[in-house]
Amino acid sequence: MGRETVDAGAADCSHKGGALVAELSRLSLNQITTPAWNVGAAVEACVRHSVPGVSLWRHKISEFGLKQSVQSVRDAGLHVSSVCRGGMFPAPDAIERRAKIEDNFRAIDEAAALNADVLVFVVGGAAPVGIAAAREMVRDGIAALVPYAEQAGVRLGLEPLHPMFAGDRSVLTTVDEALDLAAPYAEDRVGVVLDVFHIWWHPNVLQQIAAASRRIMGFHVSDWPVPLPDTLLGRCMMGDGIIDLRTLRTAVDAAGYSGPIEVEIFNQAIWDEDPDAVLTRTKQRFLELV
Amino acid sequence: MGRETVDAGAADCSHKGGALVAELSRLSLNQITTPAWNVGAAVEACVRHSVPGVSLWRHKISEFGLKQSVQSVRDAGLHVSSVCRGGMFPAPDAIERRAKIEDNFRAIDEAAALNADVLVFVVGGAAPVGIAAAREMVRDGIAALVPYAEQAGVRLGLEPLHPMFAGDRSVLTTVDEALDLAAPYAEDRVGVVLDVFHIWWHPNVLQQIAAASRRIMGFHVSDWPVPLPDTLLGRCMMGDGIIDLRTLRTAVDAAGYSGPIEVEIFNQAIWDEDPDAVLTRTKQRFLELV
Repeated sequence: MGRETVDAGAADCSHKGGALVAELSRLSLNQITTPAWNVGAAVEACVRHSVPGVSLWRHKISEFGLKQSVQSVRDAGLHVSSVCRGGMFPAPDAIERRAKIEDNFRAIDEAAALNADVLVFVVGGAAPVGIAAAREMVRDGIAALVPYAEQAGVRLGLEPLHPMFAGDRSVLTTVDEALDLAAPYAEDRVGVVLDVFHIWWHPNVLQQIAAASRRIMGFHVSDWPVPLPDTLLGRCMMGDGIIDLRTLRTAVDAAGYSGPIEVEIFNQAIWDEDPDAVLTRTKQRFLELV
Repeated sequence: MGRETVDAGAADCSHKGGALVAELSRLSLNQITTPAWNVGAAVEACVRHSVPGVSLWRHKISEFGLKQSVQSVRDAGLHVSSVCRGGMFPAPDAIERRAKIEDNFRAIDEAAALNADVLVFVVGGAAPVGIAAAREMVRDGIAALVPYAEQAGVRLGLEPLHPMFAGDRSVLTTVDEALDLAAPYAEDRVGVVLDVFHIWWHPNVLQQIAAASRRIMGFHVSDWPVPLPDTLLGRCMMGDGIIDLRTLRTAVDAAGYSGPIEVEIFNQAIWDEDPDAVLTRTKQRFLELV
């Protein structure tokens, strides 16, 4: 499907549905969806496809250079919806934990330089120290970052990951827990990032989204195929799975979030495709389903 | 490690720790851990290894014959901790849903014939009908079975599965939800089955176990390796993962459960091993870690 058809679809939807569809003006390309592109190429692609936002990953920023990345998004007039990612706090000894905090300071610097809406946090898993200790280290780690982030004007977005990542990536598994971790801080400083792949299954997901309200700092979409072929790379393009995307997106809107909606897909088959084709399909599915 | 060493270990532990260790008298072999054995062979193996309980799977009962299965456990003086499994309620049309209820009646008959402590329910996933409708069908399915089960003297145990199975196997993902589903019924008729692999990650797992209290109808152990190599077959032998088994087991005991503890491991490498070696290691790890 070509761009004209997508644009026609957009016009059609907003004529028909108004608030019922998410406008393409809210779409942001999370760079991990098209990892073949470096920062410069991803930015150019967003311009080429009229996608107004982009989310950048730190390893990609490092590879392209921070200065060049800043210049690139500035020249393109692109909005940086997020930088991925800070976190990974748990570690067995104090020196390593301190090194992780220092690395998170650098992540905050990068998010500030890029004027990103939020620095996304994946907090780290239970494996290095056990789940109870890991949770404490996450709480302590966030506390150590908040003053620095505040000074830099960077908002911290805690992302609950699906519980299948509790061992290796995130002891933070539910929206409720993220809100509890954020509670000690101002709601415009520490919030939550909601990703449908991670939260769709929860029996109280709609209540949790409502409770998140003004703490919502980001919203990510993809889909959950059945059966799930893999944990990390299992997610798929919107529409190729079973998540009721529109219900979740309208709940997020109703909770008061009107910011960018990132498409973030870890999927080897999609990574092996022509990224322009992926972005074209992304826009189409976004309009149809999100 | 041979039997004598294991038995010596058992004596040692009960001398040292008393209530701190789970006695081998509570061990039950869930048949899926050693699928090379048919019902008769699994029962003989339990006798050979002095394992007092066994959990039987329906496809294995069907293959060996219900009558022969009943005779086998009776002759061996073995305790049947559970029959696996009933459930799988969601289906797109009424005829198929009815067929599933009929099949669950047969599962109840089998659990009654075997004098099993509980019929374990894996309720079914979201895929066939969407997650909201699936949850309704689960609620309705349980309601349709309770009178029949009551008459047969069979207890229904709802097993929350890890949320990574919400698409294909179980929209029931947390202990709280299971308690909510069981709430309309007498606590000795409909309860919950707790499996560490499915519930270990939850931030409130200890509170949930306490809340389950007299509804606990079964307790399953295995472990969660990092990284998790697979969803269905990813679990591993106790001690080869990161779950704090003793903390969970003592919480289950403290909640009032003193029944059998099943070792239930889906793992291809373990399935490919000599099942006698698996059972020997199972006993050792059970004493050391559960």
